[in-house]
Amino acid sequence: VTAPRSPVAPPVPGAAAGLEELKPPKPRQRWWGWGTDGHDEPLSDGVAALLAKDLGDGGPRVDPVALQDVVLPAPALAADPRAAFIAAVGTAFVTEAHAQRVSHSAGRSYPDLVRLRTGRLEAAPDAVVFPADAGQVTAVLQACVRHDIAVVPFGGGSSVVGGVDALRGGHAAVICLDLTRLDELIDVDPVSQLATLGAGVYGPDVERLLGAHGLCLGHAPQSYEFSTVGGWVATRSSGQASTGYGRIDALVRGLKLVAPTGTITALPFPGTAAGPDLRELLVGSEGTLGVITQATVRVRPIPEQRHSEAWAMDGFAAGVQVLRDLAQSGVAAEVTRLSDEEETRLQLAGGGTAAAALSLYLKARGRSRPCLLVLSFDGRGDSVLERRRRAARVLHQHGGIYLGSRPGAAWEAGRFHGPYLRDELMSAGYLVDTLETAASWSDLPTVYRGVGAALRRALADRGTPAIVGCHVSHLYPTGASLYFTFLARSERGRELEQWRDAKDAASAAIVAAGATITHHHAVGRDHAPWLEAEIGDLGLDLLRAVKARLDPTGIMNPGKLMDAAG
Amino acid sequence: VTAPRSPVAPPVPGAAAGLEELKPPKPRQRWWGWGTDGHDEPLSDGVAALLAKDLGDGGPRVDPVALQDVVLPAPALAADPRAAFIAAVGTAFVTEAHAQRVSHSAGRSYPDLVRLRTGRLEAAPDAVVFPADAGQVTAVLQACVRHDIAVVPFGGGSSVVGGVDALRGGHAAVICLDLTRLDELIDVDPVSQLATLGAGVYGPDVERLLGAHGLCLGHAPQSYEFSTVGGWVATRSSGQASTGYGRIDALVRGLKLVAPTGTITALPFPGTAAGPDLRELLVGSEGTLGVITQATVRVRPIPEQRHSEAWAMDGFAAGVQVLRDLAQSGVAAEVTRLSDEEETRLQLAGGGTAAAALSLYLKARGRSRPCLLVLSFDGRGDSVLERRRRAARVLHQHGGIYLGSRPGAAWEAGRFHGPYLRDELMSAGYLVDTLETAASWSDLPTVYRGVGAALRRALADRGTPAIVGCHVSHLYPTGASLYFTFLARSERGRELEQWRDAKDAASAAIVAAGATITHHHAVGRDHAPWLEAEIGDLGLDLLRAVKARLDPTGIMNPGKLMDAAG
Repeated sequence: VTAPRSPVAPPVPGAAAGLEELKPPKPRQRWWGWGTDGHDEPLSDGVAALLAKDLGDGGPRVDPVALQDVVLPAPALAADPRAAFIAAVGTAFVTEAHAQRVSHSAGRSYPDLVRLRTGRLEAAPDAVVFPADAGQVTAVLQACVRHDIAVVPFGGGSSVVGGVDALRGGHAAVICLDLTRLDELIDVDPVSQLATLGAGVYGPDVERLLGAHGLCLGHAPQSYEFSTVGGWVATRSSGQASTGYGRIDALVRGLKLVAPTGTITALPFPGTAAGPDLRELLVGSEGTLGVITQATVRVRPIPEQRHSEAWAMDGFAAGVQVLRDLAQSGVAAEVTRLSDEEETRLQLAGGGTAAAALSLYLKARGRSRPCLLVLSFDGRGDSVLERRRRAARVLHQHGGIYLGSRPGAAWEAGRFHGPYLRDELMSAGYLVDTLETAASWSDLPTVYRGVGAALRRALADRGTPAIVGCHVSHLYPTGASLYFTFLARSERGRELEQWRDAKDAASAAIVAAGATITHHHAVGRDHAPWLEAEIGDLGLDLLRAVKARLDPTGIMNPGKLMDAAG
Repeated sequence: VTAPRSPVAPPVPGAAAGLEELKPPKPRQRWWGWGTDGHDEPLSDGVAALLAKDLGDGGPRVDPVALQDVVLPAPALAADPRAAFIAAVGTAFVTEAHAQRVSHSAGRSYPDLVRLRTGRLEAAPDAVVFPADAGQVTAVLQACVRHDIAVVPFGGGSSVVGGVDALRGGHAAVICLDLTRLDELIDVDPVSQLATLGAGVYGPDVERLLGAHGLCLGHAPQSYEFSTVGGWVATRSSGQASTGYGRIDALVRGLKLVAPTGTITALPFPGTAAGPDLRELLVGSEGTLGVITQATVRVRPIPEQRHSEAWAMDGFAAGVQVLRDLAQSGVAAEVTRLSDEEETRLQLAGGGTAAAALSLYLKARGRSRPCLLVLSFDGRGDSVLERRRRAARVLHQHGGIYLGSRPGAAWEAGRFHGPYLRDELMSAGYLVDTLETAASWSDLPTVYRGVGAALRRALADRGTPAIVGCHVSHLYPTGASLYFTFLARSERGRELEQWRDAKDAASAAIVAAGATITHHHAVGRDHAPWLEAEIGDLGLDLLRAVKARLDPTGIMNPGKLMDAAG
């Protein structure tokens, strides 16, 4: 008599593998915030003083509750599905441990962080399952269909739009499908400059694995240290150097998606006229259609040189016109990032004595309200030099003041630090969030004014006046993105309503101005109410028709994207 | 008592408009072939001699039958739908005239041309309807749903894959929806470099309308003179300068599609992370999901300069490696087109005394089997010069011989002439067709050998040995397209079986090598049998799920794309 087997033979635990391989990977981040426990980014005195002056005192420090005090919904996984998961991935890779459930309960949106820090989780996975490959993903999904269990695909868990919140969606239970064991460079073709990576490869590992072949991807969202290939593709991510390297949707040439009803492989053709592009239907599907298990991406030789530099521009509106000129004449740097007056003021306040000296210098040169522009060029030495020269000509013509490479290097060094700082701001009693959009160059000034005004008004109306800063950081020939950061004193006990008011006001302003509801961060839960305004009711219906074919019982990432819209 | 009105009020015919506006537009092309009646491209003596020698004598000249001798299916349009169409677009814009039915019965594929020239049409529209705007398109589609009438959207009618063949698909009748009255530049935004064009604007008119604003699109497929914006978008077209300007899918930022169940508008955001990209689902939909009525495209300032030049490369394989180098280092010309030895031989045979002199010169320099490379650079004067210099360095390193600008200018002058020549070849008794694919740089040599061998074998097996030439003409960092031209003596009376044998052999070889079934020409009828091999059965199901939502009764362009696949 042989025991029934899952469709895909699971690896036999404990045989050849070392003991450490039998444990599910530990979460890379602390459970209540960004980064590891040892890594803190205390507020500088300058920023603390500025916030206290502009926003009012944040009140007594607010620390997160202890892990054991986090209240989770009672686990609801029945014995049969648990056995099926164990058959699919092995005992060691199915866990119902408190710490893993907490760590996999949500992403890193402001509402997520509020809920985590206060220990009041509205949702958590009943178990976390760690498949090792696409075959195991298929086996797990088939078990989920059989047992009516919702599935939340999970990479780094860095979503800032509620995209990995462990919602049960009316199903019998919900599991988190942690994909970080799919962590290999599957194939590399240096001739065609293509590489195939597992969905669970983290940003730094992507560059390490490719670097061994002299290649790079060049995709570095702010979440880079704690986000994965699969997450980037599922959320249609853009990186800080997307102006030069292209968004992930431009970099992805092929992919594999495992859905409850089967597997789709989009082949990495350089170009094709063979009908609608299904790849573009799966990129950005946010786990609602299936699980992206691997992606084939365009890679490049590691650039010979990187040069970062900064400029002070005379006002945001003028600076935006210069960026347009750079983008349309093809000389924009890989990273081209212009802060408005308010964001520049925050940056200078946080920059210590060097920044103070810089402020004085700029004031002496007649720039009391400067706008910082960071350019970071990658490429061959001669090409970097040539592009720097051409950009400098344009920038000087438009009143730009060259600040040298030191502020550029400072930005480079701190480019992934924003989310750490957010934890510290929340501890200090402040609401802090970011949101982003994109519009044509013609519409950009209207969108900029409208969204800023909406955020300031919504928060002022609650008695918590806001600081709203903005930068342009992704340039296209036809337009650019706007990335807003807003801060206010947090309303203790009413953090979520306060945030929702601000978010709603900003989203309404974005939609009213004809801009997109999200340029970097995806739809998830938080932007879903505005999706219909963007793609129309029939567009939404199309997404639902596609979902019905791939996920007829609606187990894939409930409550996100089309499932939460309209 | 008011008469019932169509949902969209039709314009009142005859009131303000001049009489000439009351007639449907005349077809731009002669009914049996390419171009206008006055325009012929007789075979040069050199080509005629080469064909006779290599392929055998084509036999007596084969002219098309007279228009009045073309046999059409009996018209099947009932009085009620006719009245509904007239209510929607006006009496003058619904026609059942023989000449219009013939001209709108098919595209310009080899099978289409065989059927047209012999006067044996398997299908023809029961009427041709000419809407003036998206509102009228909606009204016509609603009438078609009510009366179960199939609809073939029609722009320039230049499809070479059977994409506009007027198939009834089991419905009560079929109309051709001629979109050439949607011929306006609807909006232009020079700041954002965006323009919105009606679906029915022909290639030369696109550049004329944009040129008045100092702008250009740069999209020039070989069908340029007789193809339209809507057709380009619906077929995911690429142009001769796509290496520089990008395929139409890269140029289209937004569009409007009118479907039987409603209208979808994809807004022209520069970038977005708001879920799957519906635009990419509608681009390439080939009239099977609805009617693309307008598109918003990225435009550019008219280039200061255009410089075309030619080189002789030492063998196709070596030439392809050079192209890869150019593409991956970003110095490829807007047009970069390398012919293999066989295509070069044909070009030189057709080029008169200048080409003969060139052959002698190349032989003297040790190139008895040269490969011609044409480069055409667009841009600012200094940038063209700089890119020419950089390209020249690479080409010289790889044994390229510079041939000056004259052969480049000759290519430029004849760039749209291929399809005219095809008519002449058919009259001379030859089978002639082209097909194209794309693959990664790594796979390209295998695909090249496999497809060429398959075509030669299939035609030789029928006793009609073939000439098969090829060029690479669309470069990407990760790969390129291959465009094959094949010629053989035509088998009188068995033209279609002969063609089908060759086409099947080539398609099987393409699929076996992992390349795409079409890079320029779309799926239509002719590539549909191979679509499932490319996108899988689940991928095909997704397309069908989308179609079911937009066109539940299946009236849109029956027998094409997903409707003819699997």
